[in-house]
Amino acid sequence: MQSMLLDFYGELLTDKQRRCFDLHYNEDLSLSEIAEQCGISRQGVWDNIRRAEASMEDIERKTGLIRRFTETREGLERLRGQLRELTSLSEGRPGELAAEAARELDTILLRL
Amino acid sequence: MQSMLLDFYGELLTDKQRRCFDLHYNEDLSLSEIAEQCGISRQGVWDNIRRAEASMEDIERKTGLIRRFTETREGLERLRGQLRELTSLSEGRPGELAAEAARELDTILLRL
Repeated sequence: MQSMLLDFYGELLTDKQRRCFDLHYNEDLSLSEIAEQCGISRQGVWDNIRRAEASMEDIERKTGLIRRFTETREGLERLRGQLRELTSLSEGRPGELAAEAARELDTILLRL
Repeated sequence: MQSMLLDFYGELLTDKQRRCFDLHYNEDLSLSEIAEQCGISRQGVWDNIRRAEASMEDIERKTGLIRRFTETREGLERLRGQLRELTSLSEGRPGELAAEAARELDTILLRL
């Protein structure tokens, strides 16, 4: 969830908040390591991470955009299962069309 | 585009900004009508609308979430065309599966 928050709303944070949050959750650095990289105290790092998280959670609570994306993705993954079954059952032109639709859906899911 | 901005980011505005923007773009009221409904001056209404728009455009410029949704929707609409063609060409069990997949996709698009 932390990675999704950063992916969706990271650009709405201050540079320092985004950097501390990213190094902590995505790069898995310790508070001391982040403090050294950013030239601030360990307490300062922790404050930035907490504020970043609170800010992004507040945005998600208000907009629900991650939930909306996640529901779409789940629906599309069910659809992908249906298209795979359809591809395996179809021959000739319908078989080609089903395979084409499955590839189109894979492309959409990759970009989502 | 104004409706999408409000749909995605409206909850991040102040109540007054959201109300002025909504009455202006979605309800098509004049500045005087909005001023009367909100109990503020016409200039105040206009300032709220301009600030609301600038704020939501800034969020979209940073996050690109509306663009991301729009690209997904366009891809899914192409996919819907492919599934319709597939449904019309298939019979028996494949035909049923294609129709089912098309319905699943319609449901996803409605909620998107």
